Amino acid sequence: MKATIYHRPKSEDAYAYDKSTMHIRLRTGKNHVRKVNLIYGDPYDWTKNQWVTSKKEMTPTGSDAQHDFWFVEVTPPYRRLRYGFEIITKTETIYYGESGFLDTPSKDTSDYFCFPFMNPADLFSPPEWVKDTVWYQIFPERFANGDPSRNPEGTLPWGSAAPTPTNHFGGDLQGIIDHLDYLQELGINGIYLTPIFEASSNHKYDTIDYLKVDPHFGDKTTFKRLVDECHKRGIRIMLDAVFNHAGFYFPPFQDVLKNQQHSKYSDWFHLRDFPVRAEEPPNYDTFAFTPFMPKFNTENEEVREYLLNVATYWIKEFDIDGWRLDVANEVDHAFWREFRKRVKALKPDLYILGEVWHNSLPWLAGDQFDAVMNYPLTNAIIDFAGKQKIGQQRFEHVITQLTHMYPIHVQQVAFNLLGSHDTPRILTQTDNDVARVKLQFLLLFSQRGTPCIYYGDEIGMTGGQDPGCRKCMVWEEEEQNQELLSFVKRLIQLRKQEKAFGTEGDLTFVENDSSLLIYQKTYENQQLLFVINSTDQPDSVQLPVSWTNRNANDLLTGETFSLATEIVIPAKSAMVLK
Amino acid sequence: MKATIYHRPKSEDAYAYDKSTMHIRLRTGKNHVRKVNLIYGDPYDWTKNQWVTSKKEMTPTGSDAQHDFWFVEVTPPYRRLRYGFEIITKTETIYYGESGFLDTPSKDTSDYFCFPFMNPADLFSPPEWVKDTVWYQIFPERFANGDPSRNPEGTLPWGSAAPTPTNHFGGDLQGIIDHLDYLQELGINGIYLTPIFEASSNHKYDTIDYLKVDPHFGDKTTFKRLVDECHKRGIRIMLDAVFNHAGFYFPPFQDVLKNQQHSKYSDWFHLRDFPVRAEEPPNYDTFAFTPFMPKFNTENEEVREYLLNVATYWIKEFDIDGWRLDVANEVDHAFWREFRKRVKALKPDLYILGEVWHNSLPWLAGDQFDAVMNYPLTNAIIDFAGKQKIGQQRFEHVITQLTHMYPIHVQQVAFNLLGSHDTPRILTQTDNDVARVKLQFLLLFSQRGTPCIYYGDEIGMTGGQDPGCRKCMVWEEEEQNQELLSFVKRLIQLRKQEKAFGTEGDLTFVENDSSLLIYQKTYENQQLLFVINSTDQPDSVQLPVSWTNRNANDLLTGETFSLATEIVIPAKSAMVLK
Repeated sequence: MKATIYHRPKSEDAYAYDKSTMHIRLRTGKNHVRKVNLIYGDPYDWTKNQWVTSKKEMTPTGSDAQHDFWFVEVTPPYRRLRYGFEIITKTETIYYGESGFLDTPSKDTSDYFCFPFMNPADLFSPPEWVKDTVWYQIFPERFANGDPSRNPEGTLPWGSAAPTPTNHFGGDLQGIIDHLDYLQELGINGIYLTPIFEASSNHKYDTIDYLKVDPHFGDKTTFKRLVDECHKRGIRIMLDAVFNHAGFYFPPFQDVLKNQQHSKYSDWFHLRDFPVRAEEPPNYDTFAFTPFMPKFNTENEEVREYLLNVATYWIKEFDIDGWRLDVANEVDHAFWREFRKRVKALKPDLYILGEVWHNSLPWLAGDQFDAVMNYPLTNAIIDFAGKQKIGQQRFEHVITQLTHMYPIHVQQVAFNLLGSHDTPRILTQTDNDVARVKLQFLLLFSQRGTPCIYYGDEIGMTGGQDPGCRKCMVWEEEEQNQELLSFVKRLIQLRKQEKAFGTEGDLTFVENDSSLLIYQKTYENQQLLFVINSTDQPDSVQLPVSWTNRNANDLLTGETFSLATEIVIPAKSAMVLK
Repeated sequence: MKATIYHRPKSEDAYAYDKSTMHIRLRTGKNHVRKVNLIYGDPYDWTKNQWVTSKKEMTPTGSDAQHDFWFVEVTPPYRRLRYGFEIITKTETIYYGESGFLDTPSKDTSDYFCFPFMNPADLFSPPEWVKDTVWYQIFPERFANGDPSRNPEGTLPWGSAAPTPTNHFGGDLQGIIDHLDYLQELGINGIYLTPIFEASSNHKYDTIDYLKVDPHFGDKTTFKRLVDECHKRGIRIMLDAVFNHAGFYFPPFQDVLKNQQHSKYSDWFHLRDFPVRAEEPPNYDTFAFTPFMPKFNTENEEVREYLLNVATYWIKEFDIDGWRLDVANEVDHAFWREFRKRVKALKPDLYILGEVWHNSLPWLAGDQFDAVMNYPLTNAIIDFAGKQKIGQQRFEHVITQLTHMYPIHVQQVAFNLLGSHDTPRILTQTDNDVARVKLQFLLLFSQRGTPCIYYGDEIGMTGGQDPGCRKCMVWEEEEQNQELLSFVKRLIQLRKQEKAFGTEGDLTFVENDSSLLIYQKTYENQQLLFVINSTDQPDSVQLPVSWTNRNANDLLTGETFSLATEIVIPAKSAMVLK
């Protein structure tokens, strides 16, 4: 039993939630423990040679296949905390702290865990506006062609061919401006644009000039207009910074190829030997093994200053609201700390979003990013409601794990998505089953974090792995799935109208004997009950007592009805009861 | 079984040990697992749509009461790593990675843990010289009086009275200079001085002027001479920076008391309301609850610049080699990151030592400190060899826990101590039992980390909790315990002569049926066997086979003898066989 217990001081298990509140969590073996109390006090608060402690009961906050999780909130009056756990099983009571397990509560503070001081400087403090944001991701070359005079040579008619790694359809910034009404009506209030700086590819992840808008997309005047038009409509705008690597045609790298060890840029990259050979595998560090994306040496002072200047330039001159950081996990932490300092000095409420696909706590301790792209959640939702690879119980376990992997305020601004330019489209992932796409959107929108819609997913566009997922946006209404579009609009509305629905609602799974996934979300006095059937058969379930014999409203349909003790949910569908 | 398994990516369980080597560790339930293999590869290394992986067996590296620990070292050719664990028990083989447990090895890299890139900027890289250092801590007011003209008013004759919180004996910097020959002969090569800046108390932790040597201790000329004389002798010198709080008479705080909210220093401290009241409890944040030590607001730009200027001043002007940071855990991490940047820019091999008494990983990730004061080791050694509160098995467990709490290179420069100006003296802790003090020194010197001797402990000085532990140094040889002194000198020599003895020797405990603690230390081909009897009875033990039927040298006595299969160790004594 002891071997399964875990707590880590100063981590996702023990953090300052705000200036005065500490969150403390504990993990115990599944069904081992009946009750847990936190024993805590100020490390310097002694009376008559006795350390003064308080006790507070912890709340169970979920389980996965192996563990139960416990939570408690305390407000240390002097912002200092020593604490330990009183763990009560059916047969014994043990005490757990920094020095391990004891049979009786220790009187020595050094046996307890320590959170020495809640310094506001170290607080994780993302921008407030993010919680209320619904994002929309645009791949500019494929969203809309608003200025054909900017078409690259060989541009194909819009949507006339399948996307390839190299073809062009002429999408541009003017095209986005032209469709802001569509986005506003959809209800989103944040746009994430994949790169717009000069680059040779259609995806622009191989930057040539970080201070120039790609001429095929527009110029600085167009971009300024786009930002202004967005801001007028209350839409924030986030750009994509590719700081892990440059493009092959980035002039400093070309200089290296030309002048080799004599290039004044030879320390800008990780060159392993000379002559530098741009072939596979390259003899310099790159993104993956592609010679066309030489990795920056961000330890070089000039490189750092160059990139940080880029980061601040687009804020100063264009007032952008966020930076999404490409391949952020492969750049050094020291660089990101400096990055945060510089951009937040200029615009304290700028959102910093890192591309990290795995456990990201090392970047989310308050000193680097505000959020990461939450692909682990993507996978869980697809596996459960898209592909039926996992059942409702395993889904609960995975969500519980993710919930306990990060502090709560970190989760509240997580960037949640069903797909992106880097994954197959959600409808294609789901064998063109629109009902399942709806379920997945519902799950996405009702988790902690801010959801992002990949352009066209809301109207049922299809496409496999890159480049398939980068088709031209379909603008003919008759070719858009209007039913799906309405459903997504409804979710966006609900997110705005019902606090409990979105990132600030606390989620509790409701155990039941059916195949249905049931969870309750609460915010202050508001309660919502989500009942989701991701199977191919209708199923019925006994409602929790507090939900029976009353009228309820299904927020998805707007219908009001009287709840019996049992309800039936058709296959691949859901209800959100209020 | 699964519920006991733990691995944390990017932590003490997975870190870059140097520019090319990764260390990976795993924790499993005690005796649950027979064998563990690491499965790993470069995340981008795919052949025919298959991720290319390698497999390497992990080594068991110890156990505590609940867990076994496993270790492996790999050198990823492109400095990127995805990895998971193949865990083999008597009955099953399971696979463990970022997404949890699987029955078969996954082909999807997202199921594996990730160390995205081994950026040198993020490498924990303490000064090289620290590994070879033996420290000596001096409390200047009590080490030696070398310049009576600087005696404070009311100075008592040297050693004529018990130390109190307020009395003075006239110790000063000239006194230290006068006794450098003693220290050189002792063999130490690093001095840690508790604060020497102007302050009103005898301990000087209540600074008045951070840029002035306390006139009772000397002046800048004396201090410069001290540093120069130390450096001539190959001795490094470390000062104590009290940056958590100022002294009551620090002029900016006096200005606050005088001008209250109108003081231009009102944001330099954490004032809760006005008028500021210097009584207990104070209405401003302080060290503990003492009104005489107002806590700095290190989020204020002016405060930060003021303190950082202090930090660099003593390096630039006096070439000091280290900063010990008082109450370091209560200052914000952001401040310490900036501190590291500034001092290391000036002197890259400066040692940064934080005063943190508890689990300190949040400060030891390479971006803040090089080491902390390793009090958890102190407690373990005292409990085992000093007070017999724990037996040899529990001691092994605690050491194994500490060993797995930090990366190996972090442990190698840990600041290990048996006591300081903040604890009772080791001889007093141990009821004046010199034999036990020797055992404790032996344990201290043979662990990973760099040992520090608190002035006078080497000659058997006594004293309880502060102020008792701050007696005047005894200089009359006849009153010094010469036998203990010789023993400590011997340990210092051994540390220098035998690589396996000290911080770079790998320690393995040897299981045995006696009450003896046995561990082997190895460095390259060198092997040492430590056999320690901390009980009050002699005991005998079967030696490991590799150690029997050969000649060995007891490094503690210098005696050579032929080893039988069994040896007898008298009560409270030890052998170090080579």
